[in-house]
Amino acid sequence: MFSVFVVPARYQLIYWPTLQGRGEFVRLVLEDVGLPYDDLARQAESNGAGGAVVVERMLSHKTQHPLFAPPILKIDELVIAQTPNILWWLGRNHNLWPIEEALCLLAMQVQLTIADLVTEVHDTHHPIALGHHYEDQMQAACKRSVQFLSARLPLFLQHLEDILSASGGVYMIGKTITTVDLSTFQVLEGLEYAFPKGFAYASHRTTKLHALRDRIRQRPRLAAYLASNRRIPFNEQGIFRRYPELDRLTE
Amino acid sequence: MFSVFVVPARYQLIYWPTLQGRGEFVRLVLEDVGLPYDDLARQAESNGAGGAVVVERMLSHKTQHPLFAPPILKIDELVIAQTPNILWWLGRNHNLWPIEEALCLLAMQVQLTIADLVTEVHDTHHPIALGHHYEDQMQAACKRSVQFLSARLPLFLQHLEDILSASGGVYMIGKTITTVDLSTFQVLEGLEYAFPKGFAYASHRTTKLHALRDRIRQRPRLAAYLASNRRIPFNEQGIFRRYPELDRLTE
Repeated sequence: MFSVFVVPARYQLIYWPTLQGRGEFVRLVLEDVGLPYDDLARQAESNGAGGAVVVERMLSHKTQHPLFAPPILKIDELVIAQTPNILWWLGRNHNLWPIEEALCLLAMQVQLTIADLVTEVHDTHHPIALGHHYEDQMQAACKRSVQFLSARLPLFLQHLEDILSASGGVYMIGKTITTVDLSTFQVLEGLEYAFPKGFAYASHRTTKLHALRDRIRQRPRLAAYLASNRRIPFNEQGIFRRYPELDRLTE
Repeated sequence: MFSVFVVPARYQLIYWPTLQGRGEFVRLVLEDVGLPYDDLARQAESNGAGGAVVVERMLSHKTQHPLFAPPILKIDELVIAQTPNILWWLGRNHNLWPIEEALCLLAMQVQLTIADLVTEVHDTHHPIALGHHYEDQMQAACKRSVQFLSARLPLFLQHLEDILSASGGVYMIGKTITTVDLSTFQVLEGLEYAFPKGFAYASHRTTKLHALRDRIRQRPRLAAYLASNRRIPFNEQGIFRRYPELDRLTE
């Protein structure tokens, strides 16, 4: 008789160490599933090394698999980049993705729409130049933010509410939880942090979404994560930034 | 003996009728594969009905499958939205997607990075408000465009060149053609149309990309399509717009 030792796959996340950003959508899945993972840049940071260097080294490394931006998830030899791509892979491998083809396509559709929403949130504070400081584009940011909160955010939230209603009101896609529910939770948390007034305005009719967010927050592993110091607090380095001058519905 | 008649699936594209936009990434795949398809809004338009109404009706229709934006592809009962999602489905079903898992993940990664690039191109002429005219945000557009052409576009193009080099220089992903090659072709065409000077600057070292673009253009079905009146010319309603004041590398 032989004993067979199966070495579990090693999950390694590479993302900026001091902010939630797009990496948080991946962290939430790993935490909800209860997968042990190495958050490489944060580990380097807490060891006194520069965590950002870990990310930059990964991006500049010339390999068979060029990378443009984090988050990046490594599973042994497999390298996955682009948030919706990572979520899709994790979802399919850890029971957080639908089975039926039409629902798979709907899940990816909504995951991509959430990614579009996240990009629009980012552009409220960086409408001109990604590489420049917020303070250098504040005037344009104020204008873009008014447009976002008054014209775009209500559309996005109503659409997400419609998706949730169409599936019966409990989960975003079909009758079981998927990565889309976790991403919806995160985007609602971030919007309320960044735009307390604008979010209240845009979400006052999306009651099913609010209830979903409360249910997701109470999932045991997620609740434990959110209460731990592994959850980086929202801050003004991330995508969801609280700048009071941007939380306005009129100029 | 029975005769079995297989009714071929009917492909219906729903997209704005007077511009290439994101719909063109889908049209290129349908044309390259040689799939007959109904371009519903364009057909309505050429019949004297308002083609945009077809799109708006589709988006506002409350069904089991809420939709946020075109392009939308219908295949009998299946409804697919979000460009990378549509391309993934078409690619898998029509021999334009890799088989091996690592290459599938790489293909989706690059497809999503191209989608990000397209969004950044769009924001050069609409940095403040999606729903307002270009002329009302021209000053901010000039600033954003300089940043895009000088800082962002060279990064994107070098990354796409690196992807192509890593796969051996003939196809973007692996050793066979995928939707990623067709999307890369389209984005290069659009960039050269919109920013003749900026594109020349940002792409002067990406020689493999230029060669790929030339090879794709000569694929027989694609060449026939590009020469036909089914190909809507680039214009100033789409994503790639030629505004000379935006084609500058310094303010």
